[in-house]
Amino acid sequence: MTRRRKFWGWGWEDEVISEAQRKTLGAMFKAQFPAFEAHELPEPTIDDIELPAPRIQPPSSLGATVSAGKYERAAHTYGKSTRDIIRGANRRFDAPPDLVAFPKTEQEVVDVLDWCARESVAAVPFGGGTSVCGGVEAGLIRGDYRGALSLDLGGLDRIEEIDRTSRAARIQGGIFGPALEDGLRPHGLTLRHFPQSFEFSTLGGWIATRSGGHYATLYTHIDEFVESLRVVTPSGISESRRLPGSGAGPSPDRLFIGSEGTLGIITEAWMRLQDRPKFRATASVKFPGAGGFLKGAEAVRLLSQSGLYPTNCRLIDPMEAQTGGAGDGSAALLVLGFESADHELEAWGSRALEICREAGGAFEAGALKTRIDAEGARGGEAGAWRQSFLRAPYMRDVIILMGGIAETFETAVTWDRFEGFYHAVREAGERGIARVCGSGRITCRFTHAYPDGPAPYFTVMAPGRAGSQLEQWDEIKAAVSEAIIKHGGTITHHHAVGRDHRPWYDRQRPEVFARALGAAKRELDPAGILNPGVLIDPARR
Amino acid sequence: MTRRRKFWGWGWEDEVISEAQRKTLGAMFKAQFPAFEAHELPEPTIDDIELPAPRIQPPSSLGATVSAGKYERAAHTYGKSTRDIIRGANRRFDAPPDLVAFPKTEQEVVDVLDWCARESVAAVPFGGGTSVCGGVEAGLIRGDYRGALSLDLGGLDRIEEIDRTSRAARIQGGIFGPALEDGLRPHGLTLRHFPQSFEFSTLGGWIATRSGGHYATLYTHIDEFVESLRVVTPSGISESRRLPGSGAGPSPDRLFIGSEGTLGIITEAWMRLQDRPKFRATASVKFPGAGGFLKGAEAVRLLSQSGLYPTNCRLIDPMEAQTGGAGDGSAALLVLGFESADHELEAWGSRALEICREAGGAFEAGALKTRIDAEGARGGEAGAWRQSFLRAPYMRDVIILMGGIAETFETAVTWDRFEGFYHAVREAGERGIARVCGSGRITCRFTHAYPDGPAPYFTVMAPGRAGSQLEQWDEIKAAVSEAIIKHGGTITHHHAVGRDHRPWYDRQRPEVFARALGAAKRELDPAGILNPGVLIDPARR
Repeated sequence: MTRRRKFWGWGWEDEVISEAQRKTLGAMFKAQFPAFEAHELPEPTIDDIELPAPRIQPPSSLGATVSAGKYERAAHTYGKSTRDIIRGANRRFDAPPDLVAFPKTEQEVVDVLDWCARESVAAVPFGGGTSVCGGVEAGLIRGDYRGALSLDLGGLDRIEEIDRTSRAARIQGGIFGPALEDGLRPHGLTLRHFPQSFEFSTLGGWIATRSGGHYATLYTHIDEFVESLRVVTPSGISESRRLPGSGAGPSPDRLFIGSEGTLGIITEAWMRLQDRPKFRATASVKFPGAGGFLKGAEAVRLLSQSGLYPTNCRLIDPMEAQTGGAGDGSAALLVLGFESADHELEAWGSRALEICREAGGAFEAGALKTRIDAEGARGGEAGAWRQSFLRAPYMRDVIILMGGIAETFETAVTWDRFEGFYHAVREAGERGIARVCGSGRITCRFTHAYPDGPAPYFTVMAPGRAGSQLEQWDEIKAAVSEAIIKHGGTITHHHAVGRDHRPWYDRQRPEVFARALGAAKRELDPAGILNPGVLIDPARR
Repeated sequence: MTRRRKFWGWGWEDEVISEAQRKTLGAMFKAQFPAFEAHELPEPTIDDIELPAPRIQPPSSLGATVSAGKYERAAHTYGKSTRDIIRGANRRFDAPPDLVAFPKTEQEVVDVLDWCARESVAAVPFGGGTSVCGGVEAGLIRGDYRGALSLDLGGLDRIEEIDRTSRAARIQGGIFGPALEDGLRPHGLTLRHFPQSFEFSTLGGWIATRSGGHYATLYTHIDEFVESLRVVTPSGISESRRLPGSGAGPSPDRLFIGSEGTLGIITEAWMRLQDRPKFRATASVKFPGAGGFLKGAEAVRLLSQSGLYPTNCRLIDPMEAQTGGAGDGSAALLVLGFESADHELEAWGSRALEICREAGGAFEAGALKTRIDAEGARGGEAGAWRQSFLRAPYMRDVIILMGGIAETFETAVTWDRFEGFYHAVREAGERGIARVCGSGRITCRFTHAYPDGPAPYFTVMAPGRAGSQLEQWDEIKAAVSEAIIKHGGTITHHHAVGRDHRPWYDRQRPEVFARALGAAKRELDPAGILNPGVLIDPARR
């Protein structure tokens, strides 16, 4: 039986959140925010909601590829941001796509785009639909379009070819994370790209949004793993040459990586892969006291500049560590990990711990745990942590149904600016939360780290008011986004720009580059049908 | 006293090649190619050559910034490819730039470009002029231009700001390698980008051409060290935000990196730097026998996929090793190096040697040499090797003056294709050499290596015929370029495209991307004055 994804929230329809789970989570939330008054919005069902009639009809020429079904339209109305879940939970489906297309072949993608261009229908590429920035939201499209079509690429889900020697594979863009890894495992290979959305997002989506993955250092974004791309644009198909490296002009792939469906549809990519790791070394380091997080940040700076390239280098502030069940809130926690398919990691791990000690970190003797996995092992504790990490978005849906607010945002900034930046963003968040929610909190961790700066990832939890959560969150989000741009960060490190981040992206991006990108867009998509409103101000066209 | 660069060949005017040196080199060349008849073309002097009168006059509005001086025009006529040296040595200066501009400030760059756009004068950016692909050759410009101006950026030569915490610096684009390193050394920092042209090429030139540098793995091109760029275009100045990483749309910097002066002038860059290394581990491994080079290639494949990231991983075929004084020509040689500012490298080096042994490599007990440099040491053997590496182009000039042919070309290809590719390119080279020169040879080394493929670097040495060297080399070059493109390689790994590689680049590059790049070009450079003919077919405009 095919499992169906929820049309309004995270994950599978059959992953029902039990009454007991809701009660436990409600009690925890209440304990943290005593003023919070939970309400009891039940999960919406498809019968609860109404959709406006489609403005256009599926063309007979495209046959069964295009649907105007209610579930299909509802399930393609939103991504999975807090804004999206709030609207979904509240049965607000007033601007769904008119149609949803499910191509199974590249030629069907071409046919759908041709039809959209002829008929002035906006085409919104949809991988797994886990955008948290309004990247797949057809309802926000303005302009002279007769309608909007959500282009679901999930049917392009095959691994076409594996090159074991070069550790690379040719893979279709619509494949989901688990199917991708299942297909590579028998060859001893892995992409090792595990964003939180892993189960429900696609390779093409990762590439189009410059997704951030497993590796804390070195290979932080999917970008580095792209060997070549095949992209369907309204002006033809672009296929770059498979090359390990090249200096022949500006990289063709880098124009499409991060283009968020505005320039073309990534139907296929040759991806660079990894051997499945066998050796592991892990350690936890505490940075106690009020300044613990900043001390930990200094350790991460030194680690990121050491050339040791830890796979995991997650610094968690005291409050977030406590919430996650690690510690009593008196220390920041640095979770370090190294992995290799080739060699033991004692030397790497030991030196990393020395660096931490020099930076004021505390750990017990024997803190470094090394392990050699049997062939094909799944990884114990890491597996458990990963399960909990992947389950988190289900919990967020429950909090939102109760009337709470729970969301994350991320950025990156150079080390010289980090301390001031961190305080400014936190304060902007805290002031915003206090203003609109009365109480609440903002915590921080590092998900990725570079020699020249960290990628801080913030989590906001606050007691919302039922009926006002959307406006409350929008106000908090605007406050922190202003602080990020003002103090030198990027509006997104790995959540993409979409429609929601565009006002700040427009300020961050060099205007001259915006003009170049707009010109490329007009050349490749002369009818302007591809994901209008994302990345590029439609008024530029 | 300011040293002046040769107007016709490599390096400094005062680096005179002595009669004794010429004789020694001549004897060596003759020993290798007994049929070779050396002739005795003396180095040209500026009085030997004639230039056509400039078609345009320097505008008084730009004052002393613009020159029509004979030396200046001659010294900006060519880059430093074999084609260029042959023409220079033979006193062929029939198509120099009409004018040469020497801006000292960014505003002067803006002013020069404004004037060029108004007056329909092509502007050819010139860093150190070491292009080996016709990238700075104004004489090749076709179309409705009233003239051509060489825009020498050497006056923009300052390090403006250093951020020790993030290990980054803001540096002007016209700075030369030695001045850049001299400015960073007191801060314990280094860019560690050492192309063979290091002494005579500039930061802006490296970025504009995706130059390949010091690191054999991981940070192979200058690309990864660019934190942000400031670029003067005819449509305004683009300045990207300093960020350690970002997922906000397609990277603005990646459009300008490798744009070879066709989109704008890189006046400033924030560059990611390294701590000066202290720990070193080096080893040499031999791969004996007829299949030694391919066995060595397999070792490099395993090393590049190991996660050890050697700094040096130079595989040299038996004949090239012998010429370089390493061995008797019976074995391929792999030169391995690791370096770090942070930690000892015993574990890295030992594991690398194990991998080599498993792949059939031979080395003596104690082959791994580890060393800890005193603060600020220059590095002994490596220093000597580097000196010889940097001197090599002077020797090429001598060979050309004698009537010989000596040139290199490089590429990259995936591992699965490498063996067939290598044979095909060698055979094409050998056939071409035999056809046009009777005898000669082509050798190979790896300069850089990736998990998914190597970057092979070929050297051609052949006895040319005085007066026909240009046509001879062009025929050999066309033959190997055809083989490269046919068998899946890139037409350039780190020598750029320029005008010389364009016929093959046009076949390698996706047509759809060419259209996007052309559109960006028209937007940023509407008058089409920037380096016409490079990268983009002017007929597209």
